Amino acid sequence: MLSFESHYRVCYGDTDRMGYMYYGNYPRLYEIGRTDMIRSIWKSYREIEDSGLILPVRTMNVVYHKPALYDELLVIKTLIKDVPKVKFRMYSEIYNANGDLINEAEVVLGFMSASTGKPARVPDEFVEILTNLYPFED
Amino acid sequence: MLSFESHYRVCYGDTDRMGYMYYGNYPRLYEIGRTDMIRSIWKSYREIEDSGLILPVRTMNVVYHKPALYDELLVIKTLIKDVPKVKFRMYSEIYNANGDLINEAEVVLGFMSASTGKPARVPDEFVEILTNLYPFED
Amino acid sequence: MLSFESHYRVCYGDTDRMGYMYYGNYPRLYEIGRTDMIRSIWKSYREIEDSGLILPVRTMNVVYHKPALYDELLVIKTLIKDVPKVKFRMYSEIYNANGDLINEAEVVLGFMSASTGKPARVPDEFVEILTNLYPFED
Amino acid sequence: MLSFESHYRVCYGDTDRMGYMYYGNYPRLYEIGRTDMIRSIWKSYREIEDSGLILPVRTMNVVYHKPALYDELLVIKTLIKDVPKVKFRMYSEIYNANGDLINEAEVVLGFMSASTGKPARVPDEFVEILTNLYPFED
Repeated sequence: MLSFESHYRVCYGDTDRMGYMYYGNYPRLYEIGRTDMIRSIWKSYREIEDSGLILPVRTMNVVYHKPALYDELLVIKTLIKDVPKVKFRMYSEIYNANGDLINEAEVVLGFMSASTGKPARVPDEFVEILTNLYPFED
Repeated sequence: MLSFESHYRVCYGDTDRMGYMYYGNYPRLYEIGRTDMIRSIWKSYREIEDSGLILPVRTMNVVYHKPALYDELLVIKTLIKDVPKVKFRMYSEIYNANGDLINEAEVVLGFMSASTGKPARVPDEFVEILTNLYPFED
Repeated sequence: MLSFESHYRVCYGDTDRMGYMYYGNYPRLYEIGRTDMIRSIWKSYREIEDSGLILPVRTMNVVYHKPALYDELLVIKTLIKDVPKVKFRMYSEIYNANGDLINEAEVVLGFMSASTGKPARVPDEFVEILTNLYPFED
Repeated sequence: MLSFESHYRVCYGDTDRMGYMYYGNYPRLYEIGRTDMIRSIWKSYREIEDSGLILPVRTMNVVYHKPALYDELLVIKTLIKDVPKVKFRMYSEIYNANGDLINEAEVVLGFMSASTGKPARVPDEFVEILTNLYPFED
């Protein structure tokens, strides 16, 4: 697996009246994680968009194990397990300050042409980068 | 199926630079939908909490079919398909102004005691309400 | 004063660990209110943008009187006090379920050409609508 | 002036359909900045709350100079200009990647007892820390 770690501190605005991070704020953390990862191995998502591609999310599956608490410094671990063909599948694992796995997600994105709105192939350049890194080490 | 319809207008703050509602804003719509539904058949989620129970989300599975556009008036359809035993499974379907199904989700909640933090049974009163309504008509 | 009322129910995602609506969520309510108002007297903000204009916010001044509580149905009252010349000044008053004024804001927007990024005059059509309604009644 | 710098990267979820950070997302940045600052000179805001105090926002005045763009790494500069007596006044300045001042805010908070809901004095310990640092250097 190819993995990348981002850090995120739970702010007041993230919390809800249970005192936990609101369940709807996790997708933002997955976004931060995968953007950081893609930037580190390829280029910024902004540059991808400037090249005429967008990556809308197709599916998202989330398991909430434990709550994230206010002011905790979380680790967002983003994982790629396979070289993408048509769909781009990423995994997120979120760990709290004690190192407990508190949340897991699988987010599948599709490459799409911004001008035509039609599905596009995963760019060769990106496939090549991932293929060169493959087999991904843990 | 037991179903309930809520309405939601996509505001500027919901959109992202693609001009679509940000993928991370949908869970909020599911929450609005299920809160409206529970209020209509039982009581407000606020009153549930006042009685000492909280309902953290356990899992969420989402399929994004089409984007929601700025200023569109969406229909959030919330569905209960079975009388819950331990876990409370709800479904959300989101329709755009043309009546297209643009987003689907399954959100599973667990009842939990707010004081002990331990899982709690689905309240008898709620099971009874649902059982009386069962078999759910479409 | 020209005024318009919108309704907004505080959802779980709006609350923070104090149990109140997060202070950063109010600007979204002002947006909902002013969009509703402009739609009612002129056209949708979406149509304004389609005509080549955008309305970035220039300044915002907020007074927080009382908290908004979870599940409360708030009234967002949006007010225009003068016919705009260059800047478009709107006022928001938020009332809770008891009718208490809990929050007040003044938001100043500027009309801007989306293509050039330069300030634009307030559209004649809109000035005319407001002038015809003037002197605004309470 | 006592100042502290935080860093914030504008994520996709922060942007709106203009391609800029939504005007309602800035208060969250002020929160991140002032929390970082208070943690650096005194203790975490979480510990303040554990001691029985909360700090609701009383007023907020914002000037939007320029938009914050997607993926920009912003600098949030948080400033204290005076030793607080009853109200705690903080200033935020946000700079973009070019070093331009794009946003300024003054946020006034009040100390309040979490149990009684009544205004509380600024804690002596905090006044002492600030007094010892005073006169603040630029």
